Amino acid sequence: MSTNPSKSSVDKFTFGLWTVGWQARDPFGDATRPALDPVEIVTRLAELGAYGVTFHDDDLIPFGSDDKARAQHIDRFKKALAATGMKVPMATTNLFTHPVFKDGAFTSNDRGVRRFALRKVMRNLDLAAELGASTYVFWGGREGAEYDGAKDVRTALDRFREGMNTLTSYCKERGYALRFAIEPKPNEPRGDILLPTIGHALAFIDTLEHKEMVGLNPEVGHEQMAGLNFVHGIAQALWHKKLFHIDLNGQRGIKYDQDLVFGHGDLLNAFFLVDLLETAGYDGPRHFDYKPSRTEDLAGVWVSAAANMRMYRLLRERAAKFRQDPEVQAAMRDARLPELAQGTLGKGETIADLLRDKSAYETFDANAAGARGCGFVRLNQLAVEHVLGAR
Amino acid sequence: MSTNPSKSSVDKFTFGLWTVGWQARDPFGDATRPALDPVEIVTRLAELGAYGVTFHDDDLIPFGSDDKARAQHIDRFKKALAATGMKVPMATTNLFTHPVFKDGAFTSNDRGVRRFALRKVMRNLDLAAELGASTYVFWGGREGAEYDGAKDVRTALDRFREGMNTLTSYCKERGYALRFAIEPKPNEPRGDILLPTIGHALAFIDTLEHKEMVGLNPEVGHEQMAGLNFVHGIAQALWHKKLFHIDLNGQRGIKYDQDLVFGHGDLLNAFFLVDLLETAGYDGPRHFDYKPSRTEDLAGVWVSAAANMRMYRLLRERAAKFRQDPEVQAAMRDARLPELAQGTLGKGETIADLLRDKSAYETFDANAAGARGCGFVRLNQLAVEHVLGAR
Amino acid sequence: MSTNPSKSSVDKFTFGLWTVGWQARDPFGDATRPALDPVEIVTRLAELGAYGVTFHDDDLIPFGSDDKARAQHIDRFKKALAATGMKVPMATTNLFTHPVFKDGAFTSNDRGVRRFALRKVMRNLDLAAELGASTYVFWGGREGAEYDGAKDVRTALDRFREGMNTLTSYCKERGYALRFAIEPKPNEPRGDILLPTIGHALAFIDTLEHKEMVGLNPEVGHEQMAGLNFVHGIAQALWHKKLFHIDLNGQRGIKYDQDLVFGHGDLLNAFFLVDLLETAGYDGPRHFDYKPSRTEDLAGVWVSAAANMRMYRLLRERAAKFRQDPEVQAAMRDARLPELAQGTLGKGETIADLLRDKSAYETFDANAAGARGCGFVRLNQLAVEHVLGAR
Amino acid sequence: MSTNPSKSSVDKFTFGLWTVGWQARDPFGDATRPALDPVEIVTRLAELGAYGVTFHDDDLIPFGSDDKARAQHIDRFKKALAATGMKVPMATTNLFTHPVFKDGAFTSNDRGVRRFALRKVMRNLDLAAELGASTYVFWGGREGAEYDGAKDVRTALDRFREGMNTLTSYCKERGYALRFAIEPKPNEPRGDILLPTIGHALAFIDTLEHKEMVGLNPEVGHEQMAGLNFVHGIAQALWHKKLFHIDLNGQRGIKYDQDLVFGHGDLLNAFFLVDLLETAGYDGPRHFDYKPSRTEDLAGVWVSAAANMRMYRLLRERAAKFRQDPEVQAAMRDARLPELAQGTLGKGETIADLLRDKSAYETFDANAAGARGCGFVRLNQLAVEHVLGAR
Repeated sequence: MSTNPSKSSVDKFTFGLWTVGWQARDPFGDATRPALDPVEIVTRLAELGAYGVTFHDDDLIPFGSDDKARAQHIDRFKKALAATGMKVPMATTNLFTHPVFKDGAFTSNDRGVRRFALRKVMRNLDLAAELGASTYVFWGGREGAEYDGAKDVRTALDRFREGMNTLTSYCKERGYALRFAIEPKPNEPRGDILLPTIGHALAFIDTLEHKEMVGLNPEVGHEQMAGLNFVHGIAQALWHKKLFHIDLNGQRGIKYDQDLVFGHGDLLNAFFLVDLLETAGYDGPRHFDYKPSRTEDLAGVWVSAAANMRMYRLLRERAAKFRQDPEVQAAMRDARLPELAQGTLGKGETIADLLRDKSAYETFDANAAGARGCGFVRLNQLAVEHVLGAR
Repeated sequence: MSTNPSKSSVDKFTFGLWTVGWQARDPFGDATRPALDPVEIVTRLAELGAYGVTFHDDDLIPFGSDDKARAQHIDRFKKALAATGMKVPMATTNLFTHPVFKDGAFTSNDRGVRRFALRKVMRNLDLAAELGASTYVFWGGREGAEYDGAKDVRTALDRFREGMNTLTSYCKERGYALRFAIEPKPNEPRGDILLPTIGHALAFIDTLEHKEMVGLNPEVGHEQMAGLNFVHGIAQALWHKKLFHIDLNGQRGIKYDQDLVFGHGDLLNAFFLVDLLETAGYDGPRHFDYKPSRTEDLAGVWVSAAANMRMYRLLRERAAKFRQDPEVQAAMRDARLPELAQGTLGKGETIADLLRDKSAYETFDANAAGARGCGFVRLNQLAVEHVLGAR
Repeated sequence: MSTNPSKSSVDKFTFGLWTVGWQARDPFGDATRPALDPVEIVTRLAELGAYGVTFHDDDLIPFGSDDKARAQHIDRFKKALAATGMKVPMATTNLFTHPVFKDGAFTSNDRGVRRFALRKVMRNLDLAAELGASTYVFWGGREGAEYDGAKDVRTALDRFREGMNTLTSYCKERGYALRFAIEPKPNEPRGDILLPTIGHALAFIDTLEHKEMVGLNPEVGHEQMAGLNFVHGIAQALWHKKLFHIDLNGQRGIKYDQDLVFGHGDLLNAFFLVDLLETAGYDGPRHFDYKPSRTEDLAGVWVSAAANMRMYRLLRERAAKFRQDPEVQAAMRDARLPELAQGTLGKGETIADLLRDKSAYETFDANAAGARGCGFVRLNQLAVEHVLGAR
Repeated sequence: MSTNPSKSSVDKFTFGLWTVGWQARDPFGDATRPALDPVEIVTRLAELGAYGVTFHDDDLIPFGSDDKARAQHIDRFKKALAATGMKVPMATTNLFTHPVFKDGAFTSNDRGVRRFALRKVMRNLDLAAELGASTYVFWGGREGAEYDGAKDVRTALDRFREGMNTLTSYCKERGYALRFAIEPKPNEPRGDILLPTIGHALAFIDTLEHKEMVGLNPEVGHEQMAGLNFVHGIAQALWHKKLFHIDLNGQRGIKYDQDLVFGHGDLLNAFFLVDLLETAGYDGPRHFDYKPSRTEDLAGVWVSAAANMRMYRLLRERAAKFRQDPEVQAAMRDARLPELAQGTLGKGETIADLLRDKSAYETFDANAAGARGCGFVRLNQLAVEHVLGAR
């Protein structure tokens, strides 16, 4: 192995309890694996070199537990964290498994459900803060509809905003240092989910009361389920300074949510994603939100967990070499990538100046400019060869 | 016919010159129809009862025309407008046909192209203002990439923003009353287009200098090419007060851009779209941005143009009846749609109040709430029956 | 209501026990409805006017039941059938829920699983024959792979064929009058399923030992999950004389398997499907393989069941009127639909004759032929108006 | 470079004249490159190490050329072939560019068009035979419809079959050694194309008069446009002994037809495809049916042509190492891949024997079998690491 697992704590590789802990129940099949104790998950992931774990409230504390049981679950978990040095950089709420959320949580047509959801989140925000998490994720998987008449989307967005505003206020009142991260998804389990993509969530955030507290937690597969380019989406999220967290996994095209190991889907896009995260200075966790395939036993679960980290490291190595390759650098210049960083208007140039510049329009040789090659295929071929370790 | 064509001017039905004027050249085939004179288009559409026409600069004035030829083209067009009473509520720029734009316009890696594009837009903004248009559309169909390494998306968004800011400033300087409307599209002709969906464009607009001047021109098929629910997208655009214009057409699923007649794609979604536009008080043009199929001759072109207007009217009738049907109203109440309009927190209720309310959490019967039926299928069946004219 | 429910027995509307009986467990959520007794399902569906029910072995007899329990389950079911007059035209095997089938049944890499699967099918073939079923469905939902290296597809097809040949032989040996119907699906629950479309299954059937015994059971949503036109697929299945059974439901584009009410997805395609089934003389059951949405309670379940039948009848009415409308008939002639039924070569015309016919090539005016309009948009608009009940 | 270009003639790398010769006209843009002389294409491809070229009639001889012009075009082409040693293993007919084919060729509703199409094919079959081609491709890109009522699919399949039967008879009468290869595609340029996938075409072939003469020419992107796994499709085509030819290129998901360089789309699937072709003994041409991106100039065209061949060789190297890696071999055994090659029934085992084997059912421990891990993720990770050149 050319990568060193001991560097993993630097890598901030994290996993949800629900990922390796997934029992592999799917829409057509029963569980193929036993439940895993969160303590065991923490211990095993630590051994594999992970930096931390994340959780939904119900992953750690079964829905409906009384206060005493809750405290015991939390206590055992804290001891495991202390024993292993594992961090909890992120936590989130399960607002989707119980039937009460079948029409959504913050946007359920049923007001009682909406209130219950807010209280459920508040309770787990307390725990997240106590455990030192810095990010709190909101995946609104049940906020949506199957039928266009079953949900007034504008009204639902009002309620969604009210919910987010209430919860940021709650954190402010309590003095929690948490930032919120919305995780978009286009569909599944609802026919259409509200805030279906990175873009829709970014726009929504701009309407929030404490919008500076709220960013994104995009997931590879979720954007790819809409046929969107994940690298483009992450770039726009970074551009808006809203990439607060990220969910890495793999997806093979527009279909049901696959949650494969990172890199086991669109490998080229994964390469450019790692290149982007590393060069853009994203310093948050590399969080793997994947599912070990239903065909695997527990040994396979741990193999798959390790595979995620291995994929990230391998792609990071290749991305670094790609950037350093003089031929790549020349190809980037030929493709005029640096020229895009120049302002279209010159420094201090006014609109009147632009209008006076005959070379910009009147004498501009559009045919000649249109005939110049961009050299993109050559650049891409170089990238693919770096992915293949062929250079 | 149960609808009255004479009401068409009230309907603000508009068509692009490029729609009925499309010669039906496709990626695998040559034109099947002759070019149409813009004057003929104006005349024929007026006869069919349209309210107005829209145009790209190059639809009216061939690329590269000198000033004299340009003036003649414009003059003939104005006379046709005057003769028919047709309006020009919207205009736009062709930044995609000529090879010079093969890597984009505002975000081309080539700075000369970017400057040329700004000037080309400015020139047509003058004409749009002169013709009384109130909306100017930006479809950035060439702003994008096929290869993830060929475009630094963050830098490209900087340039895109610079372009938009320059052009809003230009309008302000000139005193034009134009509002801008960005038209998102996920792909085609580029592998991935920047600002691929309504959401991405909304988020982008929030970063603009004169953001109050900039909104959206969403197109049915463009969102559906990403598998997104167009009604949901329009609802979010309305919620952000950014639905400045709309492109109506039909698309049959995730594939190449089909530009069918409005309603000839996803009929149920079209029904709920009309319902939304009519009940939300959208008062802009109903603009048909479709293409008469390549199989049609000129007679078929005009039949297809009329079909768009007929579809809108028929769906509007059915949507009105749907809203008025007492059984539908009861089904909406049973589905708790009015309850979603109630605040989740009561008037004046504080977070502390919510936390004190034991009925919200401690004594809330989640199982009972989860067992209650939502009645969505019944409501949807009523809607479908109204679409079918069966009630 | 313009349709008469009392005609339902003529309509051969059938439902799977697993459809109305679905407890609404999905990949992200627990069951929202209680289990239904098969006897209750039979009784309620009979009251709604259904013609019959269908079942997987495990729907009726829980997996692992001993012979005595099995006999009791069957006995109760038979009594319910006798009491209601409901038929069982089709049965099938559950080869997907239990973990043993996690890598497939007939094509599991594990030979023991393959043998178990064959025996499980044989046992239920006995019951299907005893209950008078004429069709036995094979949905190979677990036959497939997530990873291209995890399954040798050619070898898997060998095993699939061996399985089908063994089972047709079994029926022949026993003298069962059953015909087999393969149900294709592209993905979910496996990443890629073998025999993913109508076409792949048709081709496979041609390689079977008793291929005359084996046909198809296509499902609306399954083909639409691959973006394919269901009407085209059914037409090709009919052309091959292999439409042995059909699963009607609704799907809104390329995404997870939605199993909506028939007609609640692509309404226009549903209209043309009913038109095809009715005009092609398909006389098998109209089998609804749908799922009442997870948001519905038991009352909503029965509403949704009735909605399927209502949709079929409404579309059948509209299709009949469409065919009878003189303007439609004229439009079909103008679109040259009858001309397609004429042989391209004349009666008795040889290749030599065709080569000698200068009008076919040498003097053929391709430009004139290319300029003639096809009139397809007008015809489609007429169809949509019939769907809308607007003619 | 670790691969040797001089081995290219062994590699049978071929290109269509229309690939590198594409002038980059797309649905929204004009040509960005000049036309290339077929003679130059032959020469340049030979220099790059290609084995041969392929062509549509109209690529070589402009539509409507008279006999004299035709002879001159052919003569020049032959001389270039002779001068370079380039082969013509495949030819095909352009039945899609001219407006006359706007509603199809063999299945146009217009009988005159159908007759013209047959004659056009016959004429080019003569040339293909003369040039020594062994395969003749049929891509029916215009055989289809946008509207479900515009084409009676069953009747259209009758005409399609008549066309194919007429043309196989023509070849037999003339003594041509050509085999036919049908190229499926789901859509674009038609809304839905007949024979949309490998499966549908395989099924159709089974109905032909001289079906032994007819096989497939599948294209990477075409199957991926329907979200289907290309490796699975090719495996099924091989299983039916119908992989007569193959079109290699790249596609990034379900969208318009991209025709990228081979491997520039789904890289992992491309790896497993090369693995399959090489291990299955496919010995036909590796035909690149791609389009140099519209952004490229002529220099970029040749770079992209070379990139296709380089990708194939690099993936072939990695696939060979993957097969030879002892750890991979062990992982395959652990995943029970060899066990799938064993018959489900033993040699000579009868159905009666299987029924008597209590270990197959009565005493089979389904829970234990269901709990065993399949080891697929480990195997896939090993494959990905071979792709990455990391082992």
